Amino acid sequence: MFKVKVYVTLKKSVLDPQGVAVKESLNSMDYQEVQDIRVGKYMEIMIAKSERPVEEVVNEICDKLLANPVMENYWYEIEEVEEA
Amino acid sequence: MFKVKVYVTLKKSVLDPQGVAVKESLNSMDYQEVQDIRVGKYMEIMIAKSERPVEEVVNEICDKLLANPVMENYWYEIEEVEEA
Repeated sequence: MFKVKVYVTLKKSVLDPQGVAVKESLNSMDYQEVQDIRVGKYMEIMIAKSERPVEEVVNEICDKLLANPVMENYWYEIEEVEEA
Repeated sequence: MFKVKVYVTLKKSVLDPQGVAVKESLNSMDYQEVQDIRVGKYMEIMIAKSERPVEEVVNEICDKLLANPVMENYWYEIEEVEEA
């Protein structure tokens, strides 16, 4: 079994309205130190061993569903774990 | 300036409907290897130096806005960076 941590963020060139909104909220709560926020996704995925290399599976599920290739970047960390 | 990476996930005891939906989609796309998915948030926050310790600021903004203490856990990594 593999535990895969996937990170998905908007590309630098893409406006992040959610990040802007959170920043403005924090600034209005007197956290002037907060200069910029980029909000993305963090996923923990349990993937069973199969005949396919886990990297291949992870790349495919990110390209096809978990990340929008036009607007988002993704990266991941793979850790082998004991069966639950 | 500090670059802070914040991770927010649902507590283990909390149902993750989004994770369930993504898992079912992947299984229907023939990725039977995918056993479980937990979806959370990943934020990159730029915080200027101030008279307050950055850890104190980060804990407060997480407790007050970025994470729901009833249902979510958070953790973070702090990195000092050059002024942009």
